Amino acid sequence: MSFDLAAYMAERARAVDEALGRFLPAESAPPETLHRAMRYSVFAGGKRLRPVLVIAGAEAVGGNMAAVMPTACAVEMIHTYSLIHDDLPAMDNDDFRRGSPTNHKVFGEAIAILAGDALLTLAFRLLADSAPGGPDGGRRLHDVLVEIADAAGSAGMVGGQVADIESEGKKVGAETVDYIHTHKTAALIRASICAGAILAGGTEAQLSALSLVGRDLGLAFQITDDILDVTATTAELGKTAGKDQAQQKATYPAVHGIEASRSRAAGLVTEAQWALDRFGARAEPLCALGTFMIERKA
Amino acid sequence: MSFDLAAYMAERARAVDEALGRFLPAESAPPETLHRAMRYSVFAGGKRLRPVLVIAGAEAVGGNMAAVMPTACAVEMIHTYSLIHDDLPAMDNDDFRRGSPTNHKVFGEAIAILAGDALLTLAFRLLADSAPGGPDGGRRLHDVLVEIADAAGSAGMVGGQVADIESEGKKVGAETVDYIHTHKTAALIRASICAGAILAGGTEAQLSALSLVGRDLGLAFQITDDILDVTATTAELGKTAGKDQAQQKATYPAVHGIEASRSRAAGLVTEAQWALDRFGARAEPLCALGTFMIERKA
Repeated sequence: MSFDLAAYMAERARAVDEALGRFLPAESAPPETLHRAMRYSVFAGGKRLRPVLVIAGAEAVGGNMAAVMPTACAVEMIHTYSLIHDDLPAMDNDDFRRGSPTNHKVFGEAIAILAGDALLTLAFRLLADSAPGGPDGGRRLHDVLVEIADAAGSAGMVGGQVADIESEGKKVGAETVDYIHTHKTAALIRASICAGAILAGGTEAQLSALSLVGRDLGLAFQITDDILDVTATTAELGKTAGKDQAQQKATYPAVHGIEASRSRAAGLVTEAQWALDRFGARAEPLCALGTFMIERKA
Repeated sequence: MSFDLAAYMAERARAVDEALGRFLPAESAPPETLHRAMRYSVFAGGKRLRPVLVIAGAEAVGGNMAAVMPTACAVEMIHTYSLIHDDLPAMDNDDFRRGSPTNHKVFGEAIAILAGDALLTLAFRLLADSAPGGPDGGRRLHDVLVEIADAAGSAGMVGGQVADIESEGKKVGAETVDYIHTHKTAALIRASICAGAILAGGTEAQLSALSLVGRDLGLAFQITDDILDVTATTAELGKTAGKDQAQQKATYPAVHGIEASRSRAAGLVTEAQWALDRFGARAEPLCALGTFMIERKA
C-alpha cells in the first residue's frame, strides 16, 4: 500500500493537539490545580488514535477534519477521563501511564477524580458545538450524542470496566472476555468512527457498514493490547508489562492463547478492510489504521 | 399566598421519580452491580428540587412538565453523581447521606466512582432526547447542553468542589466563599431553571431574567445549607450535622455569622421574587420554591 499512514497520523495528531490546547481551560484560570490536572493527562503523550478515527470516519464518507474537530477532541477527553479513573487506587491502582506518574500520583486522588469528571463534562460541552448547520443539524447532533453517550456509559465503556473489575481473579470464559472487550474498548472506538461519519452526512447504509467496521477494529485493538501486555517490555509500553496476568485479568491470551488471539485480531482487521472496500480511496486511512492497530509495538 | 407548594412539589416529584425509574437501566440488566449502585443513590430520598426547578422554569414561560422531563431527570442524575463522588473517602469521606450509608459504603469505592461516571454520562444521553421538534430544535438542544455542561464542569460545580476542598482548614474571605457557593451549588440550580425555560421557548429577555433569579435562589439555597449544618441536628439532616465546622469548611456562617447569613439568604429570595413578578401567575411555583429554600428544616 502506498498510503503513508505515519505522515497521515502525525499531521492529524498535531491538529488535534492544537485544538485540545484551545478547548481545554487555561492553567492560569481558576481553579488552577484542576485545570493543570486536566491538561497533565490529556497531554501525557497519547497517540490520539480515537480522534484520528473520528476524522477518518468523516473522510470515509467525504467529510473533512475541521468540521469534526470538536467531536474528535471530545472523544479524546472521554478516553483520558477513563484512564485517570481506571488508574485510581480503588480501581487498577497504577502508578505509571505512558512512562509518567499517573494523575492521582501527581495531584492526589480527590483532584484526579474531579479532573476526570470535568473532562467527561467538557467532552459533552464540545459535542454541543459539533452540530453542523442546516436543517439536518439538530438531528445529527442528537445522533452523535446518543452514539457517544451510549458507548461511554453503563451499556458501554463504564459497563465494560465494571465487568473487568468483577472478573479479576476469577476463571472466566470466552463470552465474558468478549463482553469486556466489546464494551470497555471497542464501543468508544466504534462510536468515534460513526460519530465522524454521522457529522459528515453519511447515509444509513454507510453508517451501518462503518458501525461493523468500528466494532471489528475496536475488538482487534483490545486483543492486541492484551497480547502486548504479555509480549512487550515495560519500557516499550510505558506502563508495567505483565500486569494483566499479575492481576488475573480476563484477557484474550489467557482464554485463547497468544497464537489464536493474534489470528483473531488479524481476521477482524481483514474483515473490516473487506467492508471498507466499497468506500474506495476515501477509506484508505481507515484501512491503514486497521493494520496499524494490530502491528503496533506499544 | 394561596399557592400550595407542598402539593405542587409532591405531584412533580412523583412524576420525576416515575420517569427516573424508566430512564435508569434495569437492575436485572448487566452489569447488575453498577445499575443497582446507580439506582441506590438516585432513589435515596432526595427532594427532587433541581428537576422541579427545571419544570418550574419551563412553566414560568408557558411550557409544561412532559416536554422537559428528560432534562429534569438529567439534572437530578448530575446532582446524584456529584453527591456520590463528593462522599468518597478521598473527598468529604461521608458514611451517611439522607440517613442511609453512602454509595461507596454499600458498593465499594470502585463501583461508586463508576456509578457516578455512568450517571453523568446517562444525563447527557437524556439531554440528547430533550430537543423539541421544529426548525428551532437543534439550536435549543445546543443551548441546553451548553447551559448544563458549563454549570456542571470545571467552570461550575466541579470547579466549586475543587475550591471547597482547597479551602479546607484555611482562613478564607468572603470572596472565596462566594466563589465556592456560586460554583458548587448555585450554578446547577441556575442552569436547571434556565434549561427548562430554554426548552419551553423562553425569549432572550425572559432567559436573562431567569438566569439572575436562578443565581439568587441557588446562592440562598447554599447559604441555608450552611446555616442548617450549624443549627439543625443530625437526625433532622439525615447526615452528620456540624461537619462543616469540624472539617473547617469555608461557609457563610463561618465568615459572616448566622444572623447576617440568614439576612443575606432572605434578601436574595426577595430579590428573585421581585424579578419574577413580571412573569405573573406562571411564576408562582418559582416564587414559592424560593421561600421554601430558605425556610426548610433539612
